[in-house]
Amino acid sequence: MGQSIYDEALLLHELHRGKIEVRGKVPVKNRHDLSVAYTPGVAEVARKIAADPESAYRYTLKANTVAVVSDGSAVLGLGDVGGYAAIPVMEGKALLFREFAGIDAFPICFDSKNVDLVAHIRNIAPVFGGINLEDIAAPRCFAIEAALQDIGIPVMHDDQHGTAVVVLAALINACRVQKKSLAELRIVISGAGAAGTAIARLLKCVGVSDTTCISVRDIIVCDRQGIIHRGRRDILSIPHKYLIAHETNEGNRTGGLAEALAGADAFIGVSGPALVTQEMVKSMAKHPIIFAMANPVPEIMPGEAKAAGAGIIGTGRSDYHNQINNVLAFPGIFRGALDVRAARITDEMKIAAAHAIAAYIPHPTREYILPSVIDRGVSRAVAAAVAEAWTVSCTREAFI
Amino acid sequence: MGQSIYDEALLLHELHRGKIEVRGKVPVKNRHDLSVAYTPGVAEVARKIAADPESAYRYTLKANTVAVVSDGSAVLGLGDVGGYAAIPVMEGKALLFREFAGIDAFPICFDSKNVDLVAHIRNIAPVFGGINLEDIAAPRCFAIEAALQDIGIPVMHDDQHGTAVVVLAALINACRVQKKSLAELRIVISGAGAAGTAIARLLKCVGVSDTTCISVRDIIVCDRQGIIHRGRRDILSIPHKYLIAHETNEGNRTGGLAEALAGADAFIGVSGPALVTQEMVKSMAKHPIIFAMANPVPEIMPGEAKAAGAGIIGTGRSDYHNQINNVLAFPGIFRGALDVRAARITDEMKIAAAHAIAAYIPHPTREYILPSVIDRGVSRAVAAAVAEAWTVSCTREAFI
Repeated sequence: MGQSIYDEALLLHELHRGKIEVRGKVPVKNRHDLSVAYTPGVAEVARKIAADPESAYRYTLKANTVAVVSDGSAVLGLGDVGGYAAIPVMEGKALLFREFAGIDAFPICFDSKNVDLVAHIRNIAPVFGGINLEDIAAPRCFAIEAALQDIGIPVMHDDQHGTAVVVLAALINACRVQKKSLAELRIVISGAGAAGTAIARLLKCVGVSDTTCISVRDIIVCDRQGIIHRGRRDILSIPHKYLIAHETNEGNRTGGLAEALAGADAFIGVSGPALVTQEMVKSMAKHPIIFAMANPVPEIMPGEAKAAGAGIIGTGRSDYHNQINNVLAFPGIFRGALDVRAARITDEMKIAAAHAIAAYIPHPTREYILPSVIDRGVSRAVAAAVAEAWTVSCTREAFI
Repeated sequence: MGQSIYDEALLLHELHRGKIEVRGKVPVKNRHDLSVAYTPGVAEVARKIAADPESAYRYTLKANTVAVVSDGSAVLGLGDVGGYAAIPVMEGKALLFREFAGIDAFPICFDSKNVDLVAHIRNIAPVFGGINLEDIAAPRCFAIEAALQDIGIPVMHDDQHGTAVVVLAALINACRVQKKSLAELRIVISGAGAAGTAIARLLKCVGVSDTTCISVRDIIVCDRQGIIHRGRRDILSIPHKYLIAHETNEGNRTGGLAEALAGADAFIGVSGPALVTQEMVKSMAKHPIIFAMANPVPEIMPGEAKAAGAGIIGTGRSDYHNQINNVLAFPGIFRGALDVRAARITDEMKIAAAHAIAAYIPHPTREYILPSVIDRGVSRAVAAAVAEAWTVSCTREAFI
C-alpha cells in the first residue's frame, strides 16, 4: 500500500488516459456497411423498438450494458470528493465489469450531490440493462436505491450489497472451518453506514428454506456512539439506524464496542482504522472471527488480532490472507441478473451469490475462506446461482 | 433503400446485440494489476482530481469521450418515437465517432421528452469531453443547445450544425465547379426546422476575413406555409422563425416555394418528399444547384431534376452521386475540438470544417463535389482545421 502503488497508479492512468474505451462490433468499411449499421437501415430497427420497447434488448447494447453511477459523495475512503474525482473509480469498476463478467459498463458521474438522482437515473435508464450505484453516501443511498426498484431493470448499490454478499460468503466458510452454525453466531458489526446496514440486514436472512428465512439471531451493530439500541434518542431521526435498533440487538444491550464484543463470536468491521484493541479480541469467544475491513488501515492489524487469539482473520487488503472484496460478487450478480433479464436483485439472489462464492472453495481453511479476487471462475459460478435464484422465485410466484 | 437493407439491418443488430462495446485498456491479470487500476491505487488518482478537477482530462476517459444524447423526439425521419427507439441510432452514431475519429462515444437516451434536458446534461457532464445532441425536435433543440454553451465542454446539436457544415462544403465546391461566387448566390432553403435554421444562419457567415463576416446576401427560407417573411403573423410566437424572417429575405418576398424558386441559383431541401416539381427547377436560374436531402425520398428525384436542367445535384442518399451526409463533419469537428480542448464549437470552427471538407477534393466536378462518406482522411482534415480555428480565435482574444 506504499507510495509506489500510488505513483504507479498515476502513471498507468496518465499513460492510457483512463482504463476503458468504446469500440465498434460491426464493420464500417464501405457504404453498404454504413447503410446497414446507420442510415437508412437503422430506421427499421428504430421502428421495431418504437412499436415494442422491449425489443431494445434484442437489437441494441441494452441487454449487456450496466451504468456505474455515482455522485461522488462517498468515494472509497476519501469521502465527499465530488463527481469528477469519482470518475477514475467508476471507470475502474466498469473495467472490472468487463474483465470479470463480459459486461459493457459505463461510468455516469453526477456533478453535484444536490441533484434528484432518482429522477436522473430513471430518465437515462433506456440504454442500460442494469444500474450499479456506487460510492453514494448514507443515508441518501438507501432512499435512492429503494425508489429505483420499480424501473424494470436491476438497480443495486454495491457498497451495500456487494459487500454484504462477500461478508456472508466469508462467514459461511469461516463457520465451515470452525464447524459452527452460522445462525447461532453472536456477531458484532462496527459501522452503521451503507455496508454495515446491508450486512446486518442480509444476516437477518442468510438462508432460505422454501419460504422460511434462516436468520442470524444475535447481531449487534455499533456506530461511533456505541451500540445501537432502542433507547438511543439520537437515532430517532435516522431511519436506517432506527430500523437497525429494532431489527438487531434483541437483548437491547447498551455500551460501546468493547461491551458489544465481550463474548462475541465474530467481529465485522466496516468502520475506521484501529478501533479494536487486543484486549477486545481477548474478551471475545474462543478463536473469534475477525473481519477488519476498514481501508487502507483495518480496525485491527491481522498480526495483532492473531496474537490476541483470533481464529480466522480477513481484511479488505490484498497483502493479507482472506481479502474480502466486492469484486467477488458484483460482476457475477449483474451477469446473472442480465442473463435472465431479472427486474430486480432480490435477497434470494444475494444469498445465492454468497453461497456460490463460499461453495467455490471445496475445502476452506483458516487462511483460505474466499477465492482469489482475480479468479474469473467465481463470477461464472455467482452468475449461475443468481440467475437460478431469480428463475426459481419467478416460478414460485407463478404457482402461488 | 429496399426492404433488403432493412432486413439486413435487423439481422446485423440482432446478431451483435448492438454495435458498440466497452473494453478495457489496461491489464487485470493479477492482484497487482487490480491494486493499480482499482483499489487502493485509484484512490490517489481520485485525490489528484478532487484537488484539481481539470486533471480528469489527464487521468480518465474524459479527454476522448463524447456523449451522444437524445430524447428521441425527432429520430431520423420517424418523428417522436421516444428514447428507446433512439438507442440504435445513437449507438450507430457512437460507432461512427469511433470509426471515423477514434473517439469513445456513448449513447445517452432520455426516456421522456418532458424532462429538463439542460439540467440532466449539465449534471452528467463530468465524464464527458463533449456532448453531441441528436434527434431533438425543433424548436426545443435551439434553447437546449444555447443553454449548454457555458458548461466548459463543446456541445453541438449535429442535426443543425453537422448538416449546415456539409451543406456549406457542398455549396463551396458547387461554386468552384460552376465558377460562381458563393456570396452572390440566390439560395432557397426548404425546411425551417433544426437543419434549415442552422443552414440559413451559417450561410449568413460563410467566410471570415479577420473580423469581417462574409455573408450570402440573398437567402429565402420556406416552411410548410411558404416563404418566411416579416409579414407572417403565425411566426410571432416561434422565435427561430421570427429570427429567420429578420435575418433572411431582405426583399421581404412572399408566396410559396414556387415563387421563392423562380430565378434562384440553389435549392437546399431539408423538408419532405416530392415538394419540388420539374417546372420549379425550370423556373430557376440556368443550371441550378439542387440539394434535395429529404430522406429516404428527396424533394425531387435526381433523374427528374437533371431532366429539368439542374446543373449539380446532391441528396442524402448513398445510391446517388454527391451524398450530403453529416458523417463528413461531426467526427472531425469533435476530434478537433477535443484535441485542443475547446470550450465551445464556434461559427469559425464550423466554417473552417466546411472549407476543409471542400478543399479535400482538389478538382471537384458536377458529380463529385463531396468526399466519400467512408473516407477516413476527411475527419483528419476537418479536425486539423477545427483545432486551428479554435486556437486562432483564442490567440486573437488574447491580443485584443
